[in-house]
Formats: sequence, structure tokens, C-alpha cells
Amino acid sequence: MAAPQSSNLSLLAVIILLVGGTHHAVGMELKKTEIEFYMHDVVKAMKNITTMKVTHGPHGFGMIRVIDNVLTEGLQQNSKELGRARGMYVQDSLSGANLLMVLTVIFQAGEHSGSTLCLQGQDDTKQREISVVGGTGHFRHATGHAILETQLSMGANSILNFNITVLH
Amino acid sequence: MAAPQSSNLSLLAVIILLVGGTHHAVGMELKKTEIEFYMHDVVKAMKNITTMKVTHGPHGFGMIRVIDNVLTEGLQQNSKELGRARGMYVQDSLSGANLLMVLTVIFQAGEHSGSTLCLQGQDDTKQREISVVGGTGHFRHATGHAILETQLSMGANSILNFNITVLH
Amino acid sequence: MAAPQSSNLSLLAVIILLVGGTHHAVGMELKKTEIEFYMHDVVKAMKNITTMKVTHGPHGFGMIRVIDNVLTEGLQQNSKELGRARGMYVQDSLSGANLLMVLTVIFQAGEHSGSTLCLQGQDDTKQREISVVGGTGHFRHATGHAILETQLSMGANSILNFNITVLH
Repeated sequence: MAAPQSSNLSLLAVIILLVGGTHHAVGMELKKTEIEFYMHDVVKAMKNITTMKVTHGPHGFGMIRVIDNVLTEGLQQNSKELGRARGMYVQDSLSGANLLMVLTVIFQAGEHSGSTLCLQGQDDTKQREISVVGGTGHFRHATGHAILETQLSMGANSILNFNITVLH
Repeated sequence: MAAPQSSNLSLLAVIILLVGGTHHAVGMELKKTEIEFYMHDVVKAMKNITTMKVTHGPHGFGMIRVIDNVLTEGLQQNSKELGRARGMYVQDSLSGANLLMVLTVIFQAGEHSGSTLCLQGQDDTKQREISVVGGTGHFRHATGHAILETQLSMGANSILNFNITVLH
Repeated sequence: MAAPQSSNLSLLAVIILLVGGTHHAVGMELKKTEIEFYMHDVVKAMKNITTMKVTHGPHGFGMIRVIDNVLTEGLQQNSKELGRARGMYVQDSLSGANLLMVLTVIFQAGEHSGSTLCLQGQDDTKQREISVVGGTGHFRHATGHAILETQLSMGANSILNFNITVLH
């Protein structure tokens, strides 16, 4: 008798085989990695602006910003730097401040140094989850999701917490 | 004797085990969801424009538009609203009107309410298929494809039919 | 007794079953395709420019370019044409020339004709690897990576070699 069981194949496959009256459980697991960091979105500063509006016209719907934001391990700006989040925000809601994010998370220190993650999706002010759509280095073929939360707002500047779950 | 058989692992794995002379077929299926809706691309109107050009210069190659288009269940504008398609079109063919689409489909009603799909690819006027590159909510880790078809054109405005197949 | 073994599920699963004293090895392999081509990035020319800056302001951080570049089998411009790479570059590093690439590779000749690949990621001048985040035609559900290398630079123009590994 055989009783293979599996959750979503892209998540975790566990095959349990009963042969000759004995159960043999064998787990084949995709590697799941949890990553947390803080992104420093600096729109206004005396120097070191890392988020820049690149389209003309009024703020609001249609505005595109390009970012090269510092990522740190902790909330404090002098916390250990892990890398950069680079890419673009597109303000794509007629009402509200929802953004299309197309970002590459570039790890430059720590255990993921030299690898990247590609993120894409809608940063909805109510439901702040975007997708991991790819990656490089040891995150090749990655899928997953990222939960965003604003930790600090100082005028137009803010610090966002990213909680990323990656299957790779 | 054992005879595992599988189509593409990312599609469907069926393992058939023959133990002690008996076949035991066990299907482990990725969930496949078919979704259809209509997207209302409103470029020109007295009010309620949902598709806006954000780069300057002539129309044509290089033009970027940002969209926040209504999605409906049926073709009619007063059909049940399912959510929004938000993101950008980039006119990226020197000849013709082909577009790079980077969209988030945001379900706000119906069975997928609260989930999103990330779409990306070339809306070629001849071969109108783009990719599902990710998703959130119950579409986490989604892959798939979307077939596009223009159902109605009224000047610059149009209604597009989306037929999406998602594995998740 | 049963001894299933598997590498990363999204890569290759090999299940070896021992039943009644005999080993039966069954490989279930995702199709792996290697693709190589050359992309002709023509920023300046008397005619036939295929890469265009679409945002105003100075060159450098924040600049967005839209491309419709010819792909050829070999390095020479008169080599067999395979299709186009269409999409956008976003210069997203404060220092250096790193780019966010969001591209659709459109195969118009050869064995992949009619299919596309969606690429996304950071073209870092040091580590030139981006992600395959999706595809259409026979590349539906594709994941993978692309290694980029500049083969020739002629002023602002250049020819890039793409080495793509796709699982589909």
C-alpha cells in the first residue's frame, strides 16, 4: 500500500510510503528562508536623498520614483548595513497612495551577500504584501512574498520593515 | 515494482505505485484556477480617466502610461466590479503598438477578494499572452499566463478580456 | 523499503524506490533549456536607434530608457536575427551605472519562435545576473536566470551576450 501525501508541490512534498506493513516517511523540502530588514526611504534630506521623483507634473497618480535605499538589520540608521533596495515605485491608484513596486533587493553583507531577490506587486496601504518573483545567486528560482510595515515616518521620509518568506 | 509518472513538476505530479501486485494511483495536484474578467481602459473621458500618459514627448515608442483600471465580471461597465488592474504600460516597439505590461490584478470582490496576481510581459498585437509572475493572498507562489483580447474599442478607450490560468 | 531522493523540487526530482529487493530509479525532470544570443543596444546612430531615454533631466540616477533591441545568434550585426528584447532600463544606483532591467525576450525565429521570456533584475556592473520571472508559449511557468556580458562597446552603443538557463 502506498500513501503519498503532499501539500502544494511548490511548497513542501512529504511522501509517506507504507511497504510491507511499515511506514517510511521521507520529507523532500524546498528550502524556506525567512529574511527581515529595514529599508530607509529618504525622499527629503540635506544630502543623501535615495528616492527621487523622475516624472514631471503634480504629485499623485502616475508619479514614478526611482530608489536606491539602504537596508539595515535593525531599525536604527547606524544598524548594520545589509545592502540596497533598488528599483522603482509607480503611484498607480487614483485615490490613495498605493504603489506598484518593482525592486531588486541586493544583499551586500551577511549570509545572503552576493544574492538578490526580485520583488513586485502592489504596496496597498491596507494590505501590504508584495511578491517575490525571482532571484539570483542562492535565490535562483525563488518564489515567495514580502510583508511591509512602516515603522517610522519623518515627514516624507520613512523606514519600512520587510518580512520576506522565500522558497528556493 | 514502482512506476512513478509525472508531467512537468510545476504542473502536476501523479505517482503510481505498484506494491505487492496492486496499483495505487495517487494524484498530487497543484491547484489550477481559471479566472476571466474585463478590464476597462479609459484613456479619454469627461471624467474618470483611469489610464494616464506620464512621460512627455510624442506618442509612440517610449511612452509610459500608468493605469488604475476597473475590472468587471462581464463586458458591460455596470457589470459586477471585481477589483482593479493597476500598474504601467510601456510602449516598447519601434513599429506598432506593442506594450510591456507590468500589472497587479487586485481582487476586491468575489472568491479571490483580498488576493492579487502580478502580471508581466509583452502585449503583442499579434500574440496577446503575458505571464503570471507572482501573487499574494491565496495566490502566493503563483505562476501562469493570461490571454488578452480586445472586446470593444471606442476611440482610444477599450475593453479587454483577460483569461488567466494560474497554478498555485 | 522506499528511498525517495530529490534535489530542489523546482529543479529535478529523482525518486528511487526499492520494492521487493529491487531498485527502480525513475527520474522526473523539469525541462532545462540553455539559450544564448547577442543583444544590440543602439543608443546613438544616424538612424535605427533602438534604445531611447524617456525621462527628462540629467543622465544618471533615475534615468529611464525604453528599448526595442535586435537579438542575433552571433556577435555580428548581420548574424541571423532571433527576435527582439523589449522593455525598460531604470538607472537605479546613486553611484555607478547599475540598471533595473524589465525585459521581454521575444523569439521570432528559430526553435523558440512564438515564445517569450520575462526577465527582471539588477544589471550590476560587477555581478551581471538577472532573473527569468516568467514566460509564454513553450516557456509558460518558466523560472531561471540570465548571465550578461558586454562583448563590444562602441561609444554609448554596446553588444551584450545573454546566457539564459530556463527551467520550464
